[in-house]
Amino acid sequence: MRDQVQIYIKDLQSRIIHHIEALEPNGPRFFNDEWQRPEGGYGQSSIISGGEHIEKGGVNISVVYGKLPPAAIKQMRADHEGLPWSEGSTKSLPFFAAGLSLVIHPRRPEAPTVHANYRYFEITEDKEDSSSEVLAWWFGGGSDLTPSYLFHEDAVHFHKTLKEACDPFGESLYPAFKKWCDEYFFIPHRGEARGIGGIFFDDLSTHAHKRLPNNENRPTSQEDIWAFVRSCGDAFIPTYIPILQRRVAYKENIPSPIPGTEEHKRRWQLIRRGRYVEFNLVYDRGTKFGLNTPGARVESILMSLPDTASWEYRSKFGEEENTAEREIMYVLKNPRDWV
Amino acid sequence: MRDQVQIYIKDLQSRIIHHIEALEPNGPRFFNDEWQRPEGGYGQSSIISGGEHIEKGGVNISVVYGKLPPAAIKQMRADHEGLPWSEGSTKSLPFFAAGLSLVIHPRRPEAPTVHANYRYFEITEDKEDSSSEVLAWWFGGGSDLTPSYLFHEDAVHFHKTLKEACDPFGESLYPAFKKWCDEYFFIPHRGEARGIGGIFFDDLSTHAHKRLPNNENRPTSQEDIWAFVRSCGDAFIPTYIPILQRRVAYKENIPSPIPGTEEHKRRWQLIRRGRYVEFNLVYDRGTKFGLNTPGARVESILMSLPDTASWEYRSKFGEEENTAEREIMYVLKNPRDWV
Repeated sequence: MRDQVQIYIKDLQSRIIHHIEALEPNGPRFFNDEWQRPEGGYGQSSIISGGEHIEKGGVNISVVYGKLPPAAIKQMRADHEGLPWSEGSTKSLPFFAAGLSLVIHPRRPEAPTVHANYRYFEITEDKEDSSSEVLAWWFGGGSDLTPSYLFHEDAVHFHKTLKEACDPFGESLYPAFKKWCDEYFFIPHRGEARGIGGIFFDDLSTHAHKRLPNNENRPTSQEDIWAFVRSCGDAFIPTYIPILQRRVAYKENIPSPIPGTEEHKRRWQLIRRGRYVEFNLVYDRGTKFGLNTPGARVESILMSLPDTASWEYRSKFGEEENTAEREIMYVLKNPRDWV
Repeated sequence: MRDQVQIYIKDLQSRIIHHIEALEPNGPRFFNDEWQRPEGGYGQSSIISGGEHIEKGGVNISVVYGKLPPAAIKQMRADHEGLPWSEGSTKSLPFFAAGLSLVIHPRRPEAPTVHANYRYFEITEDKEDSSSEVLAWWFGGGSDLTPSYLFHEDAVHFHKTLKEACDPFGESLYPAFKKWCDEYFFIPHRGEARGIGGIFFDDLSTHAHKRLPNNENRPTSQEDIWAFVRSCGDAFIPTYIPILQRRVAYKENIPSPIPGTEEHKRRWQLIRRGRYVEFNLVYDRGTKFGLNTPGARVESILMSLPDTASWEYRSKFGEEENTAEREIMYVLKNPRDWV
């Protein structure tokens, strides 16, 4: 599985980069920043910025391995019941983690930010030779959309495409992971969602899953789970690129443009990006875990932050009746079923 | 003490607002936003934005009281040994908290951001009548400076003025609280300080203090501690306003201006403001505590965030030899004694 995951995320990264760059044939290219981890592992952060359509974006892969100290195992145990753990244990265990993580912040206020992440995690026996058995493994991931302005057809397209990627592997997957996404990407101090959701899952393995109590409507073998994860990963391009194509050509194509000056819409977009920063720095578990890990690659973790974000004291934006700003706020405060 | 603190912070707020507004006679005025807390308390958030010199600033006072649940008492116990607490207790206790908190973000990259906060906290017996005895009380506070560009004379002036406010109450105060400030306003994932420091203290009461082991060189009565806190509070205006006056008139007055275009310096300022956001959202205890408190006034808490902040992947800013950006980075990575 380790090799398959590494080959897949590398290939998916290339395909996504290709599709993003194709949007702007004369724009900036991705900067491919390869890195090695002295304690074990490697990665490639591919970053784009300053484009006419893409203000800032990163498509990163990372492969990291080493020893997991007992305190970290104990902490992980809360979310991963498959993890071997006995109270008072002082044993470190070898781990392997590989994944792809991306965030794209387009420039136009009408074009939504997107995030996706797919990852594989493995814990093995602590043996010198290569015969170490895998003690526990799981997949996690998901993808979600964060628009500053709501386009109903974009939200429906995004969710519908994700649902179609999930459904062949069991009809319980999309509804469970859509709900999980709404719960996860939520900003409690604002009482609002980060965006209009998508899917989110973790701890997907052959053992019982707390969010999927009925084993009949889900993949239960490693082979099927891996096929499901690839189906979601492959879906990234058809979920997002068509939306981006529609919105970056926004001025010419859409019959009812969002009212307001460009300056007005940009200001709103920057306020919404401020909320994105608040979620990522205050609540996102991946970011917090990363920043707390000694030797972690901070630039790759904080690549998710937008180029620019803004905060206004008691902004009136989003409160006035019959405005496009209020329309998206309503949806962020009242999550909807889009398909 | 409750009344004295309330009168003092209200008066200090007025004086600070007066001095900030006086910098820009034809600029915007502070917007005074008074609020009531249904569970007990009131406050006034005074906010200014959009000025030629002050891009965004807030000078807030708040007075909050109610019942502190046992879990909160237990958590506070770690930092406040004076707090009455017995393991397994299920008793809530009445608390009273009053303080002033301010952040000023000037517009010019040469003018430093400043933060100050002075607060009083009290826990009383749980009795119906007004005879309740005070079980524990303490003061906390401090002030610190966050420049994007280093002006040696500003750093010396800021620290020297704070030291002069501390010294009459004991020579151990400034060195202990200067060190505490350097430790507190530190961004571990960046390995750098938020700014060039100032003073920071907490849990200052009549009982033994872990940072002031020698009781001889510190105030030990409530009267003296309160006089010390007022001395620091009163020092805000002479610590900061002269710096601001020098830097907002920067173009005309300074013989050796910071090299680089206005755009270049603004970009650097926005990156530095991104670090300010990182500290406040990821590490600041007051912000975290506030955001986790149900019913807290989020707009007053997040008033500290700048109008605009920016993030660049692996920014080269601050790395090139013999640049003003590198000069401040050196100081942020190597805290200095300024007086």
